[in-house]
Amino acid sequence: MEHPENDPKYIGLNVKKGVSQPPVVNPYMKERIKRRNYSSSEFTEQILKGNITVLSQAVTLLESGKKEHQSVAQEIIEKCLPHSGNSIRIGITGVPGSGKSTSIDAFGIHLINKLNRKLAVLAIDPSSERSKGSILGDKTRMEELSRNPHAFIRPSPSAGSLGGVARKTRETIILCEAAGFDTVFVETVGVGQSETVVHSMVDFFLLIQIPGAGDELQGIKRGIMEMADGIVVNKADGDNFNKANIAAVQYRNALQLFPKTASGWTPKVLTYSGYFRTGIVEIWDMIEEYFIFAKSNGYFDLRRNSQAKYWMYESINEQLKNHFYQLPMIKKELAIKESQALSSEISPFQAARQLLALYFKNEKYVDEI
Amino acid sequence: MEHPENDPKYIGLNVKKGVSQPPVVNPYMKERIKRRNYSSSEFTEQILKGNITVLSQAVTLLESGKKEHQSVAQEIIEKCLPHSGNSIRIGITGVPGSGKSTSIDAFGIHLINKLNRKLAVLAIDPSSERSKGSILGDKTRMEELSRNPHAFIRPSPSAGSLGGVARKTRETIILCEAAGFDTVFVETVGVGQSETVVHSMVDFFLLIQIPGAGDELQGIKRGIMEMADGIVVNKADGDNFNKANIAAVQYRNALQLFPKTASGWTPKVLTYSGYFRTGIVEIWDMIEEYFIFAKSNGYFDLRRNSQAKYWMYESINEQLKNHFYQLPMIKKELAIKESQALSSEISPFQAARQLLALYFKNEKYVDEI
Repeated sequence: MEHPENDPKYIGLNVKKGVSQPPVVNPYMKERIKRRNYSSSEFTEQILKGNITVLSQAVTLLESGKKEHQSVAQEIIEKCLPHSGNSIRIGITGVPGSGKSTSIDAFGIHLINKLNRKLAVLAIDPSSERSKGSILGDKTRMEELSRNPHAFIRPSPSAGSLGGVARKTRETIILCEAAGFDTVFVETVGVGQSETVVHSMVDFFLLIQIPGAGDELQGIKRGIMEMADGIVVNKADGDNFNKANIAAVQYRNALQLFPKTASGWTPKVLTYSGYFRTGIVEIWDMIEEYFIFAKSNGYFDLRRNSQAKYWMYESINEQLKNHFYQLPMIKKELAIKESQALSSEISPFQAARQLLALYFKNEKYVDEI
Repeated sequence: MEHPENDPKYIGLNVKKGVSQPPVVNPYMKERIKRRNYSSSEFTEQILKGNITVLSQAVTLLESGKKEHQSVAQEIIEKCLPHSGNSIRIGITGVPGSGKSTSIDAFGIHLINKLNRKLAVLAIDPSSERSKGSILGDKTRMEELSRNPHAFIRPSPSAGSLGGVARKTRETIILCEAAGFDTVFVETVGVGQSETVVHSMVDFFLLIQIPGAGDELQGIKRGIMEMADGIVVNKADGDNFNKANIAAVQYRNALQLFPKTASGWTPKVLTYSGYFRTGIVEIWDMIEEYFIFAKSNGYFDLRRNSQAKYWMYESINEQLKNHFYQLPMIKKELAIKESQALSSEISPFQAARQLLALYFKNEKYVDEI
């Protein structure tokens, strides 16, 4: 299942604005052809001017599996790179039902209207398919933000390996920053490996919790809690007000048992209501306090540098593996060797060696590995 | 720093028995030359007869970095493979100071004297260097076991990547099983990634704890606790007796909050004294109970199969990476690209792409990855 941006009939359309625009047919077809022929320099020029439509098209190229699209996209990224890096990047996670979309809508409007910022909202959801209710797949879930000209909302790249999806999102951040977005949210579902990947591309990691989550849920989420620079308990309104405050106390106690963070920052726990938009100012104050803290003690730069290294090595390792496992001759032989290893005909290591020998087509060489 | 088994002057000597034997010089030199010329079939024949000296030499070949040693070692492993797999494999971990050596001595003597078993004790310690006080580096720490002819004790392969160290240990298990050892202990220090790797090669994972470890320590060890099939609290003797029982209750409570195990087994918590050798029978009863449980519900085979797959893929992935990162031309260029990525001259992804292009020596091809 393709995202609308990957669907040829949407190319050239700003889907975000499309919500309030009547469908256009002929002008759009002309526009599409013209824009597809943009050179990487023309793309970059428009992006640097803050042209959101062109930004959106560049991201589409970036997400495309086609070689010629990739090649243009990579040129655009390299040209945008010197103009990137000046945003604050915030990861936001929370289990389905924690009210992430409503919260992001509230946070974003506060940022744009009160703090005069420009916000890009990206997402990483490796299981993303519209039919499965992809996060952000339906932009109308962030009602106010999706109509605001200072916001750019982009769903998760469509399903693929987590590494591939993450790489595309990480590259999209570069384009958004070059287009003048000074704040980037990267949203993810709070249920898997994707948090680690989001954590590796943001400066601040915000965990949205809800009151009344049982002990079992807390147990599962401990690994994620350890990554959080801030935990915010949503739905602190009406009947839930007290429950949210009790939950906040529990999270504060739990955090005290954790090892000290690498940044030296003590993660904070706050309560708020995304729906009623209360407590938002305090959350943003906390995040600003963190940035002042991390920039002054050098951790901000340290983290960005170690992230750059992480992405270089991750990217190499992932592509070395892809290259191997996607070769048709390896695919075929892999199934055979795997079943031989499972039946103890050969050891798993011998199976690996034989496959590598086939891959390098030079047994003598591989023996030395 | 080399392990004694890797030191040429020790080759041909059974270091384990060496403790109680007077030094030999001339006969040993002759023996060494003769044994080094064994064919893989001769090695295998002796191993299958239970010749511990030859087993030890085969492991030394396996641990050697030399191509000709590796090649013989791999032939031996393939020949031993049909005779392997019949042991029970138990991972044992615990922080330094938890009394692992004394406990393994006590467990082992119980197994050999009361249950008539043959025990191989291996270790994984990626930081292993004798000067750093390698676990098992000093075999005399398992005093009674090291003198017992039904025990084979082998220190961790010398320092290297965790993956490499683990692969050698995993292959050593095959050789030990072929030599008739029906019980294999794989010991590790309880402080890092090595537990995950040990967990992936054993049937039962035993965690040794001590009374009085603070909350903070429990926090760090939670990931390891989740892997444990049994937790045993050592030093339940003298003044510590009550403290050990209180700790056991705390661990039982903590385990209740954990998600259900994949095996369906409920991890048990027991107390014992390694030094006074009390509570050992109960620990072994628990382990036997686990094996009856896991073999009857099919989990034992399931786990071994998934471990074989894990090792095949791990081995491939590790060797793909080694091949790349160890090439001199990559090493040189890597430092340059890394610094360009850190200074935002190029994106981390572009750095990765350029290195991969160099590796595959075919830019067009790499673009398609």
